[in-house]
Amino acid sequence: MPFYLKSKKLDFSTGDEPVAVINQKEAEIYGIQPHDKILLKWSKHHEMTVDFQFTKSKVEMGHVGLFREVWRGNEWIDDEVVVEVIPLSRPASIEAIKKKMLGQALNYEEIYSIIKDIATDRLTDIETTYYAASGYIHPYSLTEMEYMVKAMAETGEMMNLSEKVVDKHSIGGIPNNRTTMVVIPIIASLGLCIPKTSSRAITSPSGTADTMEVLAPVDHTMKKIKEIIKKTGACLVWGGGLALAPADDKIIEVSRPLAMESYDKMVVSIMAKKVAMGVDFLVIDLPYGPTAKVKDLKLAKTIANKFVAVGEKFKIKVKVVMTEALEPIGRGVGPALEARDVLRVLQQHELRPRDLENKAIYLAGELLELKGFCHKGQGKKLAEKQIKSGAAWQKMNEIIVAQGGKNNLKADSVALGALRYEIHAQKSGKVVLIDNKAINEICMNLGAPHEKIAGMHFHIDYGEKVKKGDKLFTLYAKTEDRLNLGLKALENYQVVVIK
Amino acid sequence: MPFYLKSKKLDFSTGDEPVAVINQKEAEIYGIQPHDKILLKWSKHHEMTVDFQFTKSKVEMGHVGLFREVWRGNEWIDDEVVVEVIPLSRPASIEAIKKKMLGQALNYEEIYSIIKDIATDRLTDIETTYYAASGYIHPYSLTEMEYMVKAMAETGEMMNLSEKVVDKHSIGGIPNNRTTMVVIPIIASLGLCIPKTSSRAITSPSGTADTMEVLAPVDHTMKKIKEIIKKTGACLVWGGGLALAPADDKIIEVSRPLAMESYDKMVVSIMAKKVAMGVDFLVIDLPYGPTAKVKDLKLAKTIANKFVAVGEKFKIKVKVVMTEALEPIGRGVGPALEARDVLRVLQQHELRPRDLENKAIYLAGELLELKGFCHKGQGKKLAEKQIKSGAAWQKMNEIIVAQGGKNNLKADSVALGALRYEIHAQKSGKVVLIDNKAINEICMNLGAPHEKIAGMHFHIDYGEKVKKGDKLFTLYAKTEDRLNLGLKALENYQVVVIK
Repeated sequence: MPFYLKSKKLDFSTGDEPVAVINQKEAEIYGIQPHDKILLKWSKHHEMTVDFQFTKSKVEMGHVGLFREVWRGNEWIDDEVVVEVIPLSRPASIEAIKKKMLGQALNYEEIYSIIKDIATDRLTDIETTYYAASGYIHPYSLTEMEYMVKAMAETGEMMNLSEKVVDKHSIGGIPNNRTTMVVIPIIASLGLCIPKTSSRAITSPSGTADTMEVLAPVDHTMKKIKEIIKKTGACLVWGGGLALAPADDKIIEVSRPLAMESYDKMVVSIMAKKVAMGVDFLVIDLPYGPTAKVKDLKLAKTIANKFVAVGEKFKIKVKVVMTEALEPIGRGVGPALEARDVLRVLQQHELRPRDLENKAIYLAGELLELKGFCHKGQGKKLAEKQIKSGAAWQKMNEIIVAQGGKNNLKADSVALGALRYEIHAQKSGKVVLIDNKAINEICMNLGAPHEKIAGMHFHIDYGEKVKKGDKLFTLYAKTEDRLNLGLKALENYQVVVIK
Repeated sequence: MPFYLKSKKLDFSTGDEPVAVINQKEAEIYGIQPHDKILLKWSKHHEMTVDFQFTKSKVEMGHVGLFREVWRGNEWIDDEVVVEVIPLSRPASIEAIKKKMLGQALNYEEIYSIIKDIATDRLTDIETTYYAASGYIHPYSLTEMEYMVKAMAETGEMMNLSEKVVDKHSIGGIPNNRTTMVVIPIIASLGLCIPKTSSRAITSPSGTADTMEVLAPVDHTMKKIKEIIKKTGACLVWGGGLALAPADDKIIEVSRPLAMESYDKMVVSIMAKKVAMGVDFLVIDLPYGPTAKVKDLKLAKTIANKFVAVGEKFKIKVKVVMTEALEPIGRGVGPALEARDVLRVLQQHELRPRDLENKAIYLAGELLELKGFCHKGQGKKLAEKQIKSGAAWQKMNEIIVAQGGKNNLKADSVALGALRYEIHAQKSGKVVLIDNKAINEICMNLGAPHEKIAGMHFHIDYGEKVKKGDKLFTLYAKTEDRLNLGLKALENYQVVVIK
């Protein structure tokens, strides 16, 4: 309903949007809420849409205070002039959320209004939560998923590279899986463009961004990232500092308390960032298994189909690689020890973890074939050649240097300068179990990921035969304190079971 | 997962709950969220459950700061002593909300855990919103509604009167319906116990609590209210200051942004407060019609059945009175003018609004019959007698005085001392429309409910024949400014249509 207030010019400015201020009490009486759009109308020809703010004392009842952006240059506005205040209907996004709550499908304008308002902070956490919850009331159709991906990407920064872009993405959930840091330089060393943004650890000892940060800074502006890509054809940076699909980050934020993410939402979330990055060819690493995010092959196939279908809408060619997840990949856990594994593979060190090397070559091969860079069945061989020849390491060194890291860092220079504590086999036999949960817990008690050097390094593999007294693993910590906290955590577990 | 930190005694105290403080960064790494319950364990026999707080600088990584409530009198706690930190699983309420989100029915323990945690601020707004949203995913069963009502009432203050309690409740949505203020003294004058809590206006010119406040203070403690009830057998107070079903208030708060309330939720919300008030017999005024909350008689009947069914679970005898809502009831709009209407009816003033008198007598009669206070068909007559004899006014005066209002206030003393502006008929004819929306808007522009005296008084009724020049209505305002704002609003409407 329209109502009338007396104008009062205020000497305030936002430097940007026009703002009007009314008494808190007046707002309550008229049911005006934060972020409601309001039309101020002085006469038939003089009106302006403004944001409202509230005050308990600065503006009296019956008056409306006006920021400089409202009255500057508008001679019809003066103190005590009556203005008609017309609350415009609540944002269209609110109506759209209600519609979805009631189980109806949304069109693109409706989804765009929601995503745009979330991205620009025009919806409160509570309103965003209703949207997040509404996905459980009525599952998204493929069309709605397409609309969400499009809206999420378009309401944030877009990479807009002129070249064709390839990418490799893991849905996560498997500890110390640093294949990304091996795949990127393999692909880039062949002249393909593969800009990679990664995340930091949440409740784990390291994320790809944490591990890469051991070798070079990962927090860069979009401008700097484009320079790095121009120079090297790739990058390995932290995505959190960019505004790629910002609405997605906010929806994830309100989803965190319940720790619920539907698979549809996961597909939307990943694909929105890929669209924003301008990806054309995408290999998705989708591990499944009882302890993974995806429980079995059947479910993995359903999800894989959605990735492919959404990809088609945006002309992104997607290949989903489904592998059974049983053991961690690599020998180190914690940022520095994982970075050492990566460099050992790229530098063909004799102690390099072969499982990491093999999985990275496999994924890189799939991506090369998907891109049509080589014939079917030739990708793996080509990828392997790039590692063996040193070309992948040379490319990785270029990326490290372009991001501001140390030139020509040797793998064994990475993990020096820490306190160590070795654990030995108490009997001879075969390694029948390596406890991932225990590894995570001990590494975090040792200080990872905050302490880059903290973590564990394994000297044995699953299934290997060991003799009493053989080294099983080494704990790394920066301080005596942290080493003791790690050892205390160790007491609760048998990390390596020998039978 | 458990982890280990070094104790650090802090000279802080909550005076109440034991609190421990860790570095913000540490909390992020371990995924600890506000309000997570944490077990601190120094040894097998020394452990304590604490709330966690976060700091950026006061406690270093690897340490946990302990408030006085944690270490006082516990000699095993000293600086640098290692303590095991065991995040207990997230509150059971979170799991219950997830269960409901996935469409499964909840048992009493689960619903109680949610309602209790909402009532005691252990769930965030976001988490509470998921619960509010979950009701749309899977409608509540009657049993779930019963559980919610029980849990909401039991987690707040309870009235616990020894006598049988009767009550009259209107679901609202019809302007200036002040029957409550007439029904209460009728019933109480017959010796029945009828304690009444009401709400203030939200986006309307007056609520029952605003109107009653013209006659006496309405904001009292539970102790004071019990004294008033003991003295008079009744009360007419504002419910917002009490902690009756506090979880309900918080759920309403997160429901406001979307302005969505399901009818089931409305039934639960009203019945929870009735259980908390210890009501035994309840008449519900349920107006229906195109502009009311409930659109038609069929829907009204469905809702009525739910009120009755939930009432049965708590041994509350419920009668729902369904009436078609067409016109406002009473002649005044705005707190003081409505209060004058009420007093005119109770004091049998010649200008009393007959529609208000009749509806109040009807509802009071229904309540008397429901209680079994008189034979079927006798209630209305009995209620009317209480008004005509002056007994109801005498009781109302007692209530006003007990709440701290003026003794023996005459109806015509209420609305004095205001600026007035009369509107006259511009032609002769019959009143064919009185525009409720316009009335609300003009009254609020005149300053109601903030200005008690502001509002409108009608001199004519719907359907009445008027002559050119007859007074139609009078505007009341406290200041010239407000009167002008009201007149400005008036320009947009034809409030009374004559044909």
